[in-house]
Amino acid sequence: MKRLEERIRKDGVVKTSQVLKVDSFLNHQMDVTFFYEMGAEFKRLFADRPINKILTIEASGIGIAIMAGLHFDVPVVFAKKAQTSNMDEDVYATQIHSFTHDRMNRVVVSKQYLHADDHVLIIDDFLANGCALEGLIDLVKQANGTVEGIGIAVEKGFQKGGDRLRKQGYRLASLAIVESMDETSGEIVFRDQKEQ
Amino acid sequence: MKRLEERIRKDGVVKTSQVLKVDSFLNHQMDVTFFYEMGAEFKRLFADRPINKILTIEASGIGIAIMAGLHFDVPVVFAKKAQTSNMDEDVYATQIHSFTHDRMNRVVVSKQYLHADDHVLIIDDFLANGCALEGLIDLVKQANGTVEGIGIAVEKGFQKGGDRLRKQGYRLASLAIVESMDETSGEIVFRDQKEQ
Repeated sequence: MKRLEERIRKDGVVKTSQVLKVDSFLNHQMDVTFFYEMGAEFKRLFADRPINKILTIEASGIGIAIMAGLHFDVPVVFAKKAQTSNMDEDVYATQIHSFTHDRMNRVVVSKQYLHADDHVLIIDDFLANGCALEGLIDLVKQANGTVEGIGIAVEKGFQKGGDRLRKQGYRLASLAIVESMDETSGEIVFRDQKEQ
Repeated sequence: MKRLEERIRKDGVVKTSQVLKVDSFLNHQMDVTFFYEMGAEFKRLFADRPINKILTIEASGIGIAIMAGLHFDVPVVFAKKAQTSNMDEDVYATQIHSFTHDRMNRVVVSKQYLHADDHVLIIDDFLANGCALEGLIDLVKQANGTVEGIGIAVEKGFQKGGDRLRKQGYRLASLAIVESMDETSGEIVFRDQKEQ
């Protein structure tokens, strides 16, 4: 999505060759009108799939997932980071490694909101190592639901998560894939994606 | 908002006389099309105010805030629950008491995204004791911004938060105000609100 690449070049901040800050429009302050456009693009990319539910994870995935939900006209469920490790038979639970805080987070979804007949589009704002997505996929599998696709705003193509998921056969669409960043010049190189 | 009252009666679950679960459409699974209607109602209620930004708090406020943001055509900022108590000069920080977990949470907003010339509408899904809202108001005040109003989906009118904020002079609009709940019959009584 050329408009997203241009926006990242304009407003993104290359902190290091590994760290890109886009919180002025994507995940702290959110440009809602732009999210609306991204939601339309996800609808275009997955229009042939029988999606009846969108799954994301709190907190920064919710905004984009909501706008995708508006275009698909389906409910959006967000997985919650559980505060306790209490056993709870009413939820599907999984463990997701957080690199930011170097710990495992227990993430849950109520069994009421994921079912065997669900055809799920997973949405998140960022994809790097893929741990969060693997957790969300695990939750859908526990419910015997179907992962129809994965939609990401910004993928770090130089990390392993995205290509590993593609090799596993998931239909993964990232609106922008950062191939490399130069912390001195601030230059960002995007992966050339064929018009999908 | 009659449509919200009807929806709460239909899909809400009265767990006790104090606890109402609406997570099937409001704060775990989210009915996006209905959120769009709620966003339009907030726009109608605050159309006379010069709002240029919406502020909410992660996670369950984000969905409704995003839809309000779409109708106002303004950016949405969400306050983050900080994992650490590190001093950070780049953020405004406040403490919010969590009754759910009986502890204080440090909540922050980057100074880049709240300014003295901001006219802020605060949005959240639920209002009970008002602690979260007071924290968000504190963040706007630290930035010397203006709180133009507060928009809530569901207020528990039998708790003190809403009426205390109204007495302080804030323009507070709750789309539904629960006056009482009967855990035996499941009956819910709403406060009669004049058409606002």
